[in-house]
Amino acid sequence: MTIAAVDTKISSDIGGREMRTIYMDHAATTAVDERVVEAMLPYFSQKYGNASSIHSLGREARKAIEDSRGTIAEILGCDPEEIIFTSCGTESDNLAIRGVAWALRNQGKGNHIITSSIEHHAVSHTCEQLEEQFGFKVTYLPVDRYGVVDPADVEKAITDRTVLITIMYANNEVGTIEPIAEIGRIARERGIPFHTDAVQAGGALDLNVDRLNVDLLSLSAHKFYGPKGIGLLYVRKGTPLLPIQTGGAHERHRRAGTENTPYIVGMAKALKLAQDHREENNKRIAALRDRLIEGILAEIPDVELTGHPTNRLPNSASFIIKYVEGEAMLLRLDLAGVCASTGSACSIGEARPSHVLLAMGIPPEDAFSGLRLTLGNENTEKDVDYVLEVLPEIVEKLRAISPLHQPA
Amino acid sequence: MTIAAVDTKISSDIGGREMRTIYMDHAATTAVDERVVEAMLPYFSQKYGNASSIHSLGREARKAIEDSRGTIAEILGCDPEEIIFTSCGTESDNLAIRGVAWALRNQGKGNHIITSSIEHHAVSHTCEQLEEQFGFKVTYLPVDRYGVVDPADVEKAITDRTVLITIMYANNEVGTIEPIAEIGRIARERGIPFHTDAVQAGGALDLNVDRLNVDLLSLSAHKFYGPKGIGLLYVRKGTPLLPIQTGGAHERHRRAGTENTPYIVGMAKALKLAQDHREENNKRIAALRDRLIEGILAEIPDVELTGHPTNRLPNSASFIIKYVEGEAMLLRLDLAGVCASTGSACSIGEARPSHVLLAMGIPPEDAFSGLRLTLGNENTEKDVDYVLEVLPEIVEKLRAISPLHQPA
Repeated sequence: MTIAAVDTKISSDIGGREMRTIYMDHAATTAVDERVVEAMLPYFSQKYGNASSIHSLGREARKAIEDSRGTIAEILGCDPEEIIFTSCGTESDNLAIRGVAWALRNQGKGNHIITSSIEHHAVSHTCEQLEEQFGFKVTYLPVDRYGVVDPADVEKAITDRTVLITIMYANNEVGTIEPIAEIGRIARERGIPFHTDAVQAGGALDLNVDRLNVDLLSLSAHKFYGPKGIGLLYVRKGTPLLPIQTGGAHERHRRAGTENTPYIVGMAKALKLAQDHREENNKRIAALRDRLIEGILAEIPDVELTGHPTNRLPNSASFIIKYVEGEAMLLRLDLAGVCASTGSACSIGEARPSHVLLAMGIPPEDAFSGLRLTLGNENTEKDVDYVLEVLPEIVEKLRAISPLHQPA
Repeated sequence: MTIAAVDTKISSDIGGREMRTIYMDHAATTAVDERVVEAMLPYFSQKYGNASSIHSLGREARKAIEDSRGTIAEILGCDPEEIIFTSCGTESDNLAIRGVAWALRNQGKGNHIITSSIEHHAVSHTCEQLEEQFGFKVTYLPVDRYGVVDPADVEKAITDRTVLITIMYANNEVGTIEPIAEIGRIARERGIPFHTDAVQAGGALDLNVDRLNVDLLSLSAHKFYGPKGIGLLYVRKGTPLLPIQTGGAHERHRRAGTENTPYIVGMAKALKLAQDHREENNKRIAALRDRLIEGILAEIPDVELTGHPTNRLPNSASFIIKYVEGEAMLLRLDLAGVCASTGSACSIGEARPSHVLLAMGIPPEDAFSGLRLTLGNENTEKDVDYVLEVLPEIVEKLRAISPLHQPA
């Protein structure tokens, strides 16, 4: 079997410089770990039963799913039955927000949602649809220049009509970590369900739901070397939740649809690998990240680090590269063998500047100049040095043809 | 690589009779075809880019997805952009029903939905939630003793408040094929969007959306030897649809969530294999089914075939085995190495008699005595004969201890 990940390969040799493919877009997605693929494989063509079937093949699938749920519950510090498997982080966010908001609204408890202005679109666009199409009221809290939500702002925004607070754990574009536990404490005092989109934090940060004071938490496997197309929502016992995908009795009547056994097994395996090796991986990757950040700030003029300088995801380096159009930079990096991003992959196709950067007070003309480099398990110091070698040249060339750039 | 499907294997030799594992629950799910697994494998750890990323790894994933969409569009006879990839048949049904019903209701067009009384729970429970929680009105049409909806009943049920008609293509419990094209013609004359849940029909029947006169059509890959956790919804151009899962701009803003590249590739491969070999497979499997039906009706007294005698799915044999508790029969069949079902796997956990059988006029005391045997590509005449050997004994034993059974 040849399922080897070829993340960093030497593709060719161009102009005397080694031409490599370096993947630095781990916030967008990751390669599935080979051990995860191995764990999933038997469930495609051999142990393929429908977990709802009561015959032996069905029970075999059921056991694999419940074992996986147990593995994940241990990591989250929750009961297995508090975990709902979904098809992705986006579905988890939708289920959390729509599920809680409708359940409480239909009980006459209110129609007000509190969120931040830097959420992933899975959260922000869901809130917007509830507002525009269904008569909900949404408060979008501001952030400071580093993208941090102030818990005091959350407290002030609460009304007696508030049914849900949803604030992300770590920002996907700039890596800033939010004060979730403190916000959760405030929410609990007021008896309001608190959801966090932990999709970007999944592989790197503590996921203990009690330490985080969360009632709902979204994860997506493909951010931590699991497959795309599987996620989960933690829902604390007693939290009102109206199912948004109805049908069979799956997931204790909270999420209908035949269980995706291979991916559930794969997600559990991937999360366990990520969390078991979290500290050592974070330490190594954060060192690479710091080398990358320091190098870029030193080598390229008119560059600004975005997001919090220290309280950020260990793998995340994000910048404004002034006077450079972000997508043009990406394409040149790609030609040089470097996979990077301007911000969120999920925002591609929306010809607007990043709402995250704007919310942080970055001027619109700079918000098109974002660069996000997100490191992963397979990256090395050599990869970082290669980027530090090619990026300054690319920026210089693009600035030379930029109408916005005034040479010093 | 050892991903061989071991569907029909000799497990052991018990009591002088060959002990085999025979899977006859293909309506619940199928083993993933090895060729489908092979097609998916490169997209886990090698071609793993996020299809929304603009770098080379992202574009490679995007191309695989759009090629797959093209393959499927050709089979459905539609434009590729009319296909929305979802996480399963249940999601497809939910998106069709919630999406159209809310879009039109929010435009002030009405709140009335027409469906049948024999739909899969993905349809019926979704209609029920819209009715109970959101003020929609739903008409559940009756069926005849074979489970057939009368198109004249559809026509009579239409009001000027009707926003959606949803009737399944083929029933999952009894295999009856519905007069979709005729219902679609009526819906079109009245300008009402028409959805069909084609999940159970996907591998076996014609899927041309123009011949079927449908505006929306749901499919699920795991019913035709593709993976569990991927489905699609065909949506005819111009059909109003409010997204029910919001976030990124994926699927032309109609279904947010990072694309599951391996499974999309796998579904296209599986559908092409199924449809390319449809006629020969149907012919072979229908002959096995007829042998099975004739054998059971001949060998076991007090048995009734459920569903339409001729206009039914080629792989579907379903019965009422009077005076026998369905689940007890399944467990004994399982011990004899036969994987079967009482009806819908998705109904497990609901301690109610099958709504499909009740709607067909089968008395409640008989509706717990359902047996569904659904054949598939790997089944042989030998498998059928084995079932015909073990089932009569099992029924006889269960009837001997049944308080309901009056021996002749």
